[in-house]
Amino acid sequence: MDDIKDGIKYLFQTKNKFTLCISGSAHAAMETALCNLIEKDDIVLVGITGIWGQRVKDMAQRYGAKVCTIQCIQWGYQLEVDKIYSALEQYKPKIFYLVQGESSTGVLQNHLKEIGEYCRSFECLFVVDCVASLCSTAFFMDKWFIDVALTGSQKCLGAAPGISPISFSDRAIKVFQQRRTPVTVYYFDLQPLGQYWNCWTNKSDRIYHHTISTTLLYGLREALAQVCTQGLENIILRHQKSSERLQKSLQDLGFKLFVKNSFCRLPTITTILIPNEIGAWRAVCEYAMKKYVVSK
Amino acid sequence: MDDIKDGIKYLFQTKNKFTLCISGSAHAAMETALCNLIEKDDIVLVGITGIWGQRVKDMAQRYGAKVCTIQCIQWGYQLEVDKIYSALEQYKPKIFYLVQGESSTGVLQNHLKEIGEYCRSFECLFVVDCVASLCSTAFFMDKWFIDVALTGSQKCLGAAPGISPISFSDRAIKVFQQRRTPVTVYYFDLQPLGQYWNCWTNKSDRIYHHTISTTLLYGLREALAQVCTQGLENIILRHQKSSERLQKSLQDLGFKLFVKNSFCRLPTITTILIPNEIGAWRAVCEYAMKKYVVSK
Repeated sequence: MDDIKDGIKYLFQTKNKFTLCISGSAHAAMETALCNLIEKDDIVLVGITGIWGQRVKDMAQRYGAKVCTIQCIQWGYQLEVDKIYSALEQYKPKIFYLVQGESSTGVLQNHLKEIGEYCRSFECLFVVDCVASLCSTAFFMDKWFIDVALTGSQKCLGAAPGISPISFSDRAIKVFQQRRTPVTVYYFDLQPLGQYWNCWTNKSDRIYHHTISTTLLYGLREALAQVCTQGLENIILRHQKSSERLQKSLQDLGFKLFVKNSFCRLPTITTILIPNEIGAWRAVCEYAMKKYVVSK
Repeated sequence: MDDIKDGIKYLFQTKNKFTLCISGSAHAAMETALCNLIEKDDIVLVGITGIWGQRVKDMAQRYGAKVCTIQCIQWGYQLEVDKIYSALEQYKPKIFYLVQGESSTGVLQNHLKEIGEYCRSFECLFVVDCVASLCSTAFFMDKWFIDVALTGSQKCLGAAPGISPISFSDRAIKVFQQRRTPVTVYYFDLQPLGQYWNCWTNKSDRIYHHTISTTLLYGLREALAQVCTQGLENIILRHQKSSERLQKSLQDLGFKLFVKNSFCRLPTITTILIPNEIGAWRAVCEYAMKKYVVSK
């Protein structure tokens, strides 16, 4: 588990002591970020560029937050930095949740460092979901003033799904420690989880919380070892080159890409505009699913 | 996923349509049972025969329940049926949560059918945690009037940990459908989970909820196939015979067992009284951990 913590720190480019895994899918890591930081009536600002932002809105409301949102001008676009600044100024949220890689639209959100600086100036916790983007594009948790980063194991990392890395800054942990009410979900509660993952002290004094999946743990450890061996820069470059090649070939074939600005295209997910003569995207899905047995 | 549902139905001896897995440890399945049935100020009765009952008390309180408890006369004993009846009569709880196999004390709770009948007569939902007991002792979800049953994958089933079977009776689902407030945890919410696992309709019309661990899913499918091939009765018998042999050998060596009544001994976990001349159990643990590198 200590090796895994070290690997995740490298992955997120952070020195955070409170770096661990959640025993569940990336959705479980999203719950963990939210339920440990939100108390009833806290203001949470959510950036929406696709379904993941929409889901976070729903999740945060269930924990009793007052949720405000900012949305991109149209699907396929990132959020504008000025709009984020204005929203932070207007709503003064405790938390700003932003998705770096929106898998539903194929959008990459840029300018995270600038946004992180804004959040810090408004004393707002900056939570970044890099499930679909990590290892395919730059990510610097500490340098970019990110307070919570979370990702999955089965995307660019290529490990088995079911275990999800997450990291909390000292600022986020301070907010957690100042809670007036208990965390609603014991399974995601950072207090016992931190004892299990030995995040609270430097002594190796772990306390059992739940039965972690050793199978997934060993798989993740190996995937992290491979990332360390290959080097983050090389892995990112490989993903970006593959993506550029795919984008170019699709355009050469006459397809138009859904994300117009090439700077905002997620290297991991390339979304294509369905040509007018084909009609609804549903028809394409159904054809592909029947012909190539692609699962939903 | 359909094969797994069939396997779990056989395991729990139920015909419940709402049978699925939670993507997490058995602790996550406990959360699922509680957060889908509890609404603020609901009365929940918890039977306590060791740490798992105590943990359920804590978990249910976090979801806003008014928790009442009944405790065994002393660690190492099961709960008496009369005491349960009186508590059901006194508190009129919405839910009664009982642990069939308390791994912290090695106690097997008997008389589940009788208790199930009592619960039904008081219109109380009967939730049984059979994490440490299933496949080592009889369990009949439908015949015993159990409304929610949950277990882990890595105990008697012998699959990889990290995915947890759970089943809900029609009565429990009706209570879920009559909720006035949303389920606090989207990750555990039966509405989207049921769509993902195709529990709501007979059409194969699944909706994506989270990325399930295919690795764990295939492992569990194989474990369930082995249970079906060997037959539940034979697996239970094998566990019971091994346990009896272990208990006899320990007693032949002069050890006393922690659970005095042989009828209440969990076939999966045999707890031993530390002899007076050795002193504290902690000393035994430390010795074992140092000498045999046993993990906590």
